[in-house]
Amino acid sequence: MTKKINAVQFGLGPIGQLCAKTILQKHSGRINLVGAVDIDPSKVGKDIGELVGVGSTGIIVENNIKSIVKKHKVNLVFHTTTSFMEDVKEQIIDLIKLKLNVVSSTEELFFPWFRNRQIAEEIDLLAKKFKVRVLGTGVNPGFVMDVLPSVLTQVCTEVKKIRVERVVNASKRRLPLQLKIGAGLKVGDFKAKKATGKFGHIGLVESLQFLAYILNIQLDEIKEELNPIVTKRNLKTEYLTIQKGRVAGIHHTAIGFKNGQDVITLDLKMYVGDHKDYDAVYIDGEPPIKMKVLNGIFGDVATVGSLINSAYLIFNAKPGLITMADIGLPHGFLRQRQ
Amino acid sequence: MTKKINAVQFGLGPIGQLCAKTILQKHSGRINLVGAVDIDPSKVGKDIGELVGVGSTGIIVENNIKSIVKKHKVNLVFHTTTSFMEDVKEQIIDLIKLKLNVVSSTEELFFPWFRNRQIAEEIDLLAKKFKVRVLGTGVNPGFVMDVLPSVLTQVCTEVKKIRVERVVNASKRRLPLQLKIGAGLKVGDFKAKKATGKFGHIGLVESLQFLAYILNIQLDEIKEELNPIVTKRNLKTEYLTIQKGRVAGIHHTAIGFKNGQDVITLDLKMYVGDHKDYDAVYIDGEPPIKMKVLNGIFGDVATVGSLINSAYLIFNAKPGLITMADIGLPHGFLRQRQ
Repeated sequence: MTKKINAVQFGLGPIGQLCAKTILQKHSGRINLVGAVDIDPSKVGKDIGELVGVGSTGIIVENNIKSIVKKHKVNLVFHTTTSFMEDVKEQIIDLIKLKLNVVSSTEELFFPWFRNRQIAEEIDLLAKKFKVRVLGTGVNPGFVMDVLPSVLTQVCTEVKKIRVERVVNASKRRLPLQLKIGAGLKVGDFKAKKATGKFGHIGLVESLQFLAYILNIQLDEIKEELNPIVTKRNLKTEYLTIQKGRVAGIHHTAIGFKNGQDVITLDLKMYVGDHKDYDAVYIDGEPPIKMKVLNGIFGDVATVGSLINSAYLIFNAKPGLITMADIGLPHGFLRQRQ
Repeated sequence: MTKKINAVQFGLGPIGQLCAKTILQKHSGRINLVGAVDIDPSKVGKDIGELVGVGSTGIIVENNIKSIVKKHKVNLVFHTTTSFMEDVKEQIIDLIKLKLNVVSSTEELFFPWFRNRQIAEEIDLLAKKFKVRVLGTGVNPGFVMDVLPSVLTQVCTEVKKIRVERVVNASKRRLPLQLKIGAGLKVGDFKAKKATGKFGHIGLVESLQFLAYILNIQLDEIKEELNPIVTKRNLKTEYLTIQKGRVAGIHHTAIGFKNGQDVITLDLKMYVGDHKDYDAVYIDGEPPIKMKVLNGIFGDVATVGSLINSAYLIFNAKPGLITMADIGLPHGFLRQRQ
């Protein structure tokens, strides 16, 4: 909180819109939103406040950030476009060259040194050159399956194994999320989608690799599995009707091995049904720890929470491609009631 | 984990002994224990390994650290003596002057700028002068009622109130702990002890002040209450028999207010009985969060975990009197299985 933040919202999908709305409604005293960018012609030219439903702000959505940077002193971008490093690489490089710090919801950016090492190193070098920080964060990856379990081990004199479970009931979530988890698909279509390699929860292996890094273990092997959860009865959401035998969602796991032992297990279920959400961390260690977040952590709001709260903290870190391990103790803010 | 740690265990009460034992058994590859200090004549002259039950080490307990520092290159001290700043002040000043970094279980040292501002500033200045770090940590204060709730707010776009509960069943804990919470006392004697101001859980207000600091709120007022939990039936532990109507333990609360609103509540119960241990954090915010650690976090081991794991991280911080907000993302280590 040492710096006044002048920010641009880059990408106005559901998360980007919620981020802009939250900044305007709840963080305007600390974050000065000076611009918003999207390539969607139906959004460009509109007032960002009107677009997100908080009334006129005078900030007009543009289709390119360069004109905003010419008019305003910007030092940070909330980057919320897509999940994959290859797709965001050029965007992020452009932002760095404009000397902008970047806080991004791109899942693969959370810990990209394994699956996207070359791009990661390129971004890191460039960020150092232009003296800005680039951080990937959110709720998952960014919190429930990586940062939170890391912090829970603070009190352990020994950690033998760690298991993290996240169960999300997608029934009341937005349509894009229901589609993202394959809800309503035939099992065969699920398999075809899975074969593209761009389906399922993005970032699970990145969470695993962050945990291995922070807990200081060299994994020998990672096994990732993505399976459909098939419904045994007809299901209905606001948007979809899912027949018995069709896909209700995903069961996605990533397991890290050391000397033949499964030392880190991440187990994620996101599906439509009537089950309860929860997050859980089980540490087999001294002392053993069983932590549960009852009713889970609601994803969209929490992703925006991570983005905004991390923005305050990234100036603690040295320039470069940084992680949630580099910004100090993560935290939010208590509202100052008047 | 950038530095090789050459450590001395300073203070060999239950926590100090467990700390030395844990270092020798589980962290000897990373922490080189070169000495141990206590003033108790029954411990001085003994082999520390034999004292803590892990066999001979050749490290003999001394009654003064100066002779150890002359013989060995020491850069860190695990300081586990007493709870109060006034009592440890001279010890810590001596350690600083020997150019030793200090990780301490002294509860009041966790966040001493309010109740012990003058001593805190003196220690801070001196630590800066001698270029060492002084940190107070443990399980409580140091984790369950301060660090953990802080981290949980990372995903909140807004925090209105926060409530932390810790319930400890003292039945199976060591005798000093049972006595510390007044188990077996008559209610009148409890009140007399309370009047000394040195009874109850030490560090609760320090946890509250850390939380207020990290969540960036200026509290107007703090209300602290300490009451006996009186047993309605006869209780028996390994060490004590507690008659009906006598004190089974403490109910200790600290509440922080802002504009007449209770914004942070810490509620601690430690007593003998047949209840279950748990820790819980309730965040009234967006999203709301209900976190529970089932069966709680076992205090003694967890305090040692915090001490040892923080020792690896304090070199991340600049010299001075530091807090758990200054050492990066707190975490432990996964055991490297062979």
